[in-house]
Amino acid sequence: MEITIVTFDDFTDLDLFILWDLLNRVELPGWRVRFLGEAQSHTSSTGVEVKMHGPLEEANAADAVLFCSGRGSRLKMRDENFLGAFRLDESRQLIGAIDSGALLLGALGLLEGRRATTYPSADLKSLLEGMGAEVVWESFVREGNVATAAQCLAGQSLAGWVIETLAGAEYREKALRSVAPLDSLGVEL
Amino acid sequence: MEITIVTFDDFTDLDLFILWDLLNRVELPGWRVRFLGEAQSHTSSTGVEVKMHGPLEEANAADAVLFCSGRGSRLKMRDENFLGAFRLDESRQLIGAIDSGALLLGALGLLEGRRATTYPSADLKSLLEGMGAEVVWESFVREGNVATAAQCLAGQSLAGWVIETLAGAEYREKALRSVAPLDSLGVEL
Repeated sequence: MEITIVTFDDFTDLDLFILWDLLNRVELPGWRVRFLGEAQSHTSSTGVEVKMHGPLEEANAADAVLFCSGRGSRLKMRDENFLGAFRLDESRQLIGAIDSGALLLGALGLLEGRRATTYPSADLKSLLEGMGAEVVWESFVREGNVATAAQCLAGQSLAGWVIETLAGAEYREKALRSVAPLDSLGVEL
Repeated sequence: MEITIVTFDDFTDLDLFILWDLLNRVELPGWRVRFLGEAQSHTSSTGVEVKMHGPLEEANAADAVLFCSGRGSRLKMRDENFLGAFRLDESRQLIGAIDSGALLLGALGLLEGRRATTYPSADLKSLLEGMGAEVVWESFVREGNVATAAQCLAGQSLAGWVIETLAGAEYREKALRSVAPLDSLGVEL
């Protein structure tokens, strides 16, 4: 299984790393998680530089493609070179986004006539509505093979959906339990 | 305010980035968050390389010092060069650790006779008890100016404690609300 996370400059750290860390907790042969971007590395809005594993075009053959979020998404939603790299196909791929990453799904025509969620701002709501989406304020919204999640920690739902669909519910449960604050679990040693 | 996060090779991505991202959401003049390490960059157990902002010794003058977690902590707890860099003082500093980062607090003598929490494993419990700690299975344990947190997402409590103590409760609330999955909040736009 090839899982890809698409990012860009001026991304939000936690949006990227909650997806990355959870998806990497699946220990199965052939399960591979990759950062994809236009450049060899991209830098977050707090200045953290992260090396990419491959170009955007790798997303087109992946089993799952998740778009990161952050201030940079507003530039990328109008960037024809960026958008032109994608030939995504929801009939054979899981496609998702966190927070303002939904703008990129919208710009690729994937949210037309669909319910979607995003970081709660009037500006993002209006931009997504302009792309044909019906914006709802839920933490995770799935329409077929296209999903959106709202606010960084809802990345748990997005990563969990990918893990459950491609690996199974037990892997999802194991990954999410291993990061949950301890109180909520109980410990037996 | 100088907030430092100490890390090392073979750290856990989400442990580092939940602290980093939340602490960087405080927008106050002079509020600065820094990664400290022995090398110019350190690489996580999934292969993500992160540049450091300064050497370990900077922790000694900081207002808060948080130790990251990950497999590498078991080497560092026995590394005299690493441990020897620190001259921490809980009378004027907030000192904390997430998950196995507690081993480093223990090795520095900061957990003796104190309650502490960590990632739930028999091995970690036994190591910490050997350093004089009373291990309790709670998500966040504070004893004076020394605190420990268990499992990545409890980094919210650790970062929240630092933010509330050094900046105020309203900044803590604002940072935590801005990452919580949307459902739990309600949205008014």
